[in-house]
Amino acid sequence: MTSPAEIATPAVLIDSDVLDRNIARMSTAISARGLKLRPHVKTHKVLEIAAKQLAAGAVGITVATIGEAEVFANNGVKDIFIAYPLWVNPPQAERLRRLAATTRITVGVDSPQSAAAMGMNLGDDAGKITVSVEIDSGHHRSGVHPAAAVDVARAAAQAGMNVAGVFTFPGHSYAPGVPTAAARDEDAALSQAAALLQAAGFTLTQISGGSTPTALLDEKTVATELRPGVYVFGDAQQWELSRCETNDIALTVVSTVVSHHATEPDEPGRFILDAGSKILGSDRAPWATGYGRLIDYPDARIIALSEHHATVEWPQGQKIPERGSRLRVVPNHVCLTMNLVDEVHIVSNGIITGQWAVAARGKNS
Amino acid sequence: MTSPAEIATPAVLIDSDVLDRNIARMSTAISARGLKLRPHVKTHKVLEIAAKQLAAGAVGITVATIGEAEVFANNGVKDIFIAYPLWVNPPQAERLRRLAATTRITVGVDSPQSAAAMGMNLGDDAGKITVSVEIDSGHHRSGVHPAAAVDVARAAAQAGMNVAGVFTFPGHSYAPGVPTAAARDEDAALSQAAALLQAAGFTLTQISGGSTPTALLDEKTVATELRPGVYVFGDAQQWELSRCETNDIALTVVSTVVSHHATEPDEPGRFILDAGSKILGSDRAPWATGYGRLIDYPDARIIALSEHHATVEWPQGQKIPERGSRLRVVPNHVCLTMNLVDEVHIVSNGIITGQWAVAARGKNS
Repeated sequence: MTSPAEIATPAVLIDSDVLDRNIARMSTAISARGLKLRPHVKTHKVLEIAAKQLAAGAVGITVATIGEAEVFANNGVKDIFIAYPLWVNPPQAERLRRLAATTRITVGVDSPQSAAAMGMNLGDDAGKITVSVEIDSGHHRSGVHPAAAVDVARAAAQAGMNVAGVFTFPGHSYAPGVPTAAARDEDAALSQAAALLQAAGFTLTQISGGSTPTALLDEKTVATELRPGVYVFGDAQQWELSRCETNDIALTVVSTVVSHHATEPDEPGRFILDAGSKILGSDRAPWATGYGRLIDYPDARIIALSEHHATVEWPQGQKIPERGSRLRVVPNHVCLTMNLVDEVHIVSNGIITGQWAVAARGKNS
Repeated sequence: MTSPAEIATPAVLIDSDVLDRNIARMSTAISARGLKLRPHVKTHKVLEIAAKQLAAGAVGITVATIGEAEVFANNGVKDIFIAYPLWVNPPQAERLRRLAATTRITVGVDSPQSAAAMGMNLGDDAGKITVSVEIDSGHHRSGVHPAAAVDVARAAAQAGMNVAGVFTFPGHSYAPGVPTAAARDEDAALSQAAALLQAAGFTLTQISGGSTPTALLDEKTVATELRPGVYVFGDAQQWELSRCETNDIALTVVSTVVSHHATEPDEPGRFILDAGSKILGSDRAPWATGYGRLIDYPDARIIALSEHHATVEWPQGQKIPERGSRLRVVPNHVCLTMNLVDEVHIVSNGIITGQWAVAARGKNS
């Protein structure tokens, strides 16, 4: 049993009590809406956290890559949705085949061409893979217009795969004041695509949406399942979007004040923490106040970030922390932080109770 | 022997011929200026690349963390500068002691307080560690004003460490049109600090500066050694700052076109690559044209980046690449990319000739 004051900084701490509460709250809320929960585990990449999510009622998990699917399937997860429009070449087809031997695998598809390539390379095993058509609901990244969903689904069926339904990611919900509008866009796009597929004779078993900012809104939805990810930890983006409170934040990066930067008496104080972009990640949305937040000092701002330095501006007139002090940083985008460390420290009541390996870290392909 | 067309994407490719040329060019140029080269290996974190740099005449290496120093020291590197203002607590002092048993270790220091803590925690072993005083030459991150260098050096000497000299990082050289001015700032700050230390009776064996944008400028300098890092690979930042040509870029991320985004005929074409922030990193300077560049298509722009998607805008009127095509992306900031992968593929004449482990990946503390 060690305390966070004794470990080498910077390091990732996960408060297991807050984590458990976040997992329970989302499960209860999604269930109360009559929906299934299929959490996106790219946020944490940790086997033990996926196990907690499944124990709390998740119907399966969502991943972004075949490599992530392999890590979780090899550790007993039986229902995995790769929510990404994979281009399946022969080596990837072989990996999907192996996955499908033990696990129910659903794969995203967003064009007749990629459906045809997937079917051709899966050959006689195409029927072992289920696909879901990705719809663009306003994020304008991958995914087709709802009106084009039938073309994609027909190509997939013709190529031999099972068609489960449709999915979308309302990524444009990540801005202040827009989650409700994004949730409505999502519902409209999924509704249109689902209706067209049903009219074309498809039986839908999956209508999938959801992001952490929209999952708890309780807007009307045609979706049958939601795929939030970040809710397990919270992060500075969710905090600044008012989608979580600071006491809902389970993950922080403990870091040390290593340097004071001299400033004039009429300027805010400034100092350097040893947590930089190599542990916090460097995502910064245009509306973010900085490169992360200090959980215990909400008025401080991280005004610059380099690989191993965070430059903190302190509220004017307040004494800055002594060198050697330890402060906890909430990363802007927690999924990047988890992908930067090999293990995390589990904390309960301020004591480190163990470590978890980030088993799927770096599984980009 | 495989070709980059056969590996799973996204993946990091390093052209070993370009790498070798970059290493030789920097060694020759620094040597021609009468300076020593102590490359920063946080850029690559690869044992084999450090060995090439040392074989080409580097006097030692620079790292950012004790963890990085441990990886290289355990593999035979004998002279390591941790160019970071460490706050040395008892466990870190123990790690420094162990490092110093086999390796010449120099550590950055930028305050009397951190010098005193380091000396106190090293105890009788303080004399086994050498320190260098970090000077702020205009980047305004860590480091003291040159006028304060003597106070720091005296505190370090009093605490029992050897004082080698001064160092600075002219990080404000990372913007268009300013590298020459930044190099002059660096020279002015190092000159002032070095003169003050010499006047105070210190004998200086290290006056250390340099960044990739400034190292080849051939400006007058008081420095005795330079610490560039990125020059081994180049990246999109160096390209856009005109500090390298595309044929000097050794590292690319091979990625696959997975989705076409429908656009109107009078709009530029748009498509999605499977390389996102989890392999490219999300650094984007205000002056950057996007989130990385396509090495073979300089007119294309990466207009958005999420964890596993790069959104590419294609020159208007030109046909966008077919789904399944492979394109090579140059990351904006190559140090982040190397820290995101466990291994890299070595390429020569278009053929993959082997892999290198990123041995010091994730060594943040």
